[in-house]
Amino acid sequence: MSERAVKRLGKIRASMKATNTQLVALGPGAHMQWVLGFHTHADERPCLLLIGEEREAFLMPALNAEDTRQRCSITCHEWADDEGPIKALLAALDDVGAGNARNIVLDETMRADFAMLLIDHLPGANRSFTENTVGALRMRKDELEYASLKENASIADQAMLAGIAAIKPDMSELEVAAIIERKFKDQSTAMKFAIVGAGPNGALPHHHTGSSILEMGNGIVIDIGGQKGEYSSDITRFAVLGEPSEEMVKVHGIVNEAVNSAMEITRPGIKAREVDQAARGVIAKAGYGEYFVHRTGHGLGIEVHEPPYITASSETILETGMVFSIEPGIYLPGKFGVRLEEIVILREDGPEILSSLSRDIIRV
Amino acid sequence: MSERAVKRLGKIRASMKATNTQLVALGPGAHMQWVLGFHTHADERPCLLLIGEEREAFLMPALNAEDTRQRCSITCHEWADDEGPIKALLAALDDVGAGNARNIVLDETMRADFAMLLIDHLPGANRSFTENTVGALRMRKDELEYASLKENASIADQAMLAGIAAIKPDMSELEVAAIIERKFKDQSTAMKFAIVGAGPNGALPHHHTGSSILEMGNGIVIDIGGQKGEYSSDITRFAVLGEPSEEMVKVHGIVNEAVNSAMEITRPGIKAREVDQAARGVIAKAGYGEYFVHRTGHGLGIEVHEPPYITASSETILETGMVFSIEPGIYLPGKFGVRLEEIVILREDGPEILSSLSRDIIRV
Repeated sequence: MSERAVKRLGKIRASMKATNTQLVALGPGAHMQWVLGFHTHADERPCLLLIGEEREAFLMPALNAEDTRQRCSITCHEWADDEGPIKALLAALDDVGAGNARNIVLDETMRADFAMLLIDHLPGANRSFTENTVGALRMRKDELEYASLKENASIADQAMLAGIAAIKPDMSELEVAAIIERKFKDQSTAMKFAIVGAGPNGALPHHHTGSSILEMGNGIVIDIGGQKGEYSSDITRFAVLGEPSEEMVKVHGIVNEAVNSAMEITRPGIKAREVDQAARGVIAKAGYGEYFVHRTGHGLGIEVHEPPYITASSETILETGMVFSIEPGIYLPGKFGVRLEEIVILREDGPEILSSLSRDIIRV
Repeated sequence: MSERAVKRLGKIRASMKATNTQLVALGPGAHMQWVLGFHTHADERPCLLLIGEEREAFLMPALNAEDTRQRCSITCHEWADDEGPIKALLAALDDVGAGNARNIVLDETMRADFAMLLIDHLPGANRSFTENTVGALRMRKDELEYASLKENASIADQAMLAGIAAIKPDMSELEVAAIIERKFKDQSTAMKFAIVGAGPNGALPHHHTGSSILEMGNGIVIDIGGQKGEYSSDITRFAVLGEPSEEMVKVHGIVNEAVNSAMEITRPGIKAREVDQAARGVIAKAGYGEYFVHRTGHGLGIEVHEPPYITASSETILETGMVFSIEPGIYLPGKFGVRLEEIVILREDGPEILSSLSRDIIRV
């Protein structure tokens, strides 16, 4: 096991002690990646990293055991396809001293059948998700994690610029996305998503980039992210093909002011909801409150969405090292949408923005 | 809603009636895709298609509601980021008449937190997964589904040939995978996975294709799949760089005989375990039983792994229209592995193989 993994397991155990938790169970996903630096093969075969108070062990499909052993020394309790996972699960729970766990933590992202398998075999246990253990620990990034996020942000900036430079009338949204993907790839980065929402499509926050054709006068929301190494990027800008309408200029100005207002209030020690309220207040005051249909932001790290979530009701206290988006938007059905998204890391004196790009309207 | 969706919902309701089920809850994944022809945006926000005895409704994050309404007419019970999903969930359950459901079916692939949200608000209900409802229905493919799977198989054949044609000493596994990806892309197909396992890496069934260099004498397992449209491909062949060793020829011969033996027994009406036993018997008889560390096969459709699973203990009765893999393997740790995989659709008179490629050792 790597030094980093040993250290992170130690942090998890401290959080388990503080919350009277006897077992943390992680599936093959981002939490496991954070702990071990890799995650095991993810398919329908139940596979779990079980972290007990003193020991950890894998519930492991037999066909993936050798591969896992080549990556780390954690004991694999193997099960073959014909026998199923129950016997191995019971042995693994016993191994990590969690056969009678009273309080267990489940990786909220694991498959439902993995979770049910576990809770059906720990019938008396109280369950919760990772918000006070692994999830809480992952929120604050160290300087190595910051370096990777910063590199990813710079790569995404270049991809955004390449996409914008290519925009022409009669191109499709997908053609713009393909150019962005190419620019990510040229920087040894896998594109994770590219939302290109032209005209009325921009009013759908999670628009499925498609064959809609870009027309003169369209406002275009471009929201992209890639992954190089373990960490990711996420950035949104607003472009206009030709001359922006008065309404576009006005709405863009309000959204940008909302970003600025959220930035100003963001300091260690305040609650996440205060950031949301700062952004939301600007938009509401301008009369567009009903058109800002989502939270102000989300954490960014191994996952593109992870804690802390910046919502109107979140009591999470913001701390230095937390990395999250500030991305208010206004969505006018049938017309256009504007969203501006910055990723920040929270420093002692406030947020440091990872991107180097202006948030002005991009005229193409 | 499309005619196909209406028809498939009807089939689900018939299976619900037969199993005394009052609610089927599907997450944004393959089951929903099968029913509706699309699935909603998947992230950490709880989103479920709730199918009651007579009505269906969505639990829907507000920011995705408009997008969903543009795709189908099913009622969206919306929830905003700041209020959370509980109120909308209760309204949706009430809407579909499942507020007091006694027997519920959960999509086994949904996130654990989605599943827990649901079962915590239906505390008395007995839960099961989709094996007798949606999962069972998805196993048998109609002729349109077959046509898509056949097209995907032909595309994968071409990608396999392109990868093989490119193999040279001193290439890395990843370079071979990149050529395969390119060939998929040239056929308007997204590559879903490419396992290229050279030499000892071939002995890891789910080897992570990496920077290992191909050397003369290496046995190479190539297991690839792509997706064009809704359906996928999956094929595995065995290549040797230079002259295969006697042991490679022998082991390949045994694995190929195991495939043939499984093909011969595969008929409508037999149990899945009989197919597994036919393949496993050949390998065991040859003295390699302990090196065949996985089931003989899995279903293929919208997902690369789906029912029916061809395991030593499966009592599933095989029926016409089922599509699944037959893919025995022998994995010799530290030396090499051989796996040969065919996808078949079961016809009245036996299995029809979708690939047109020989299973002989490919000498490059």
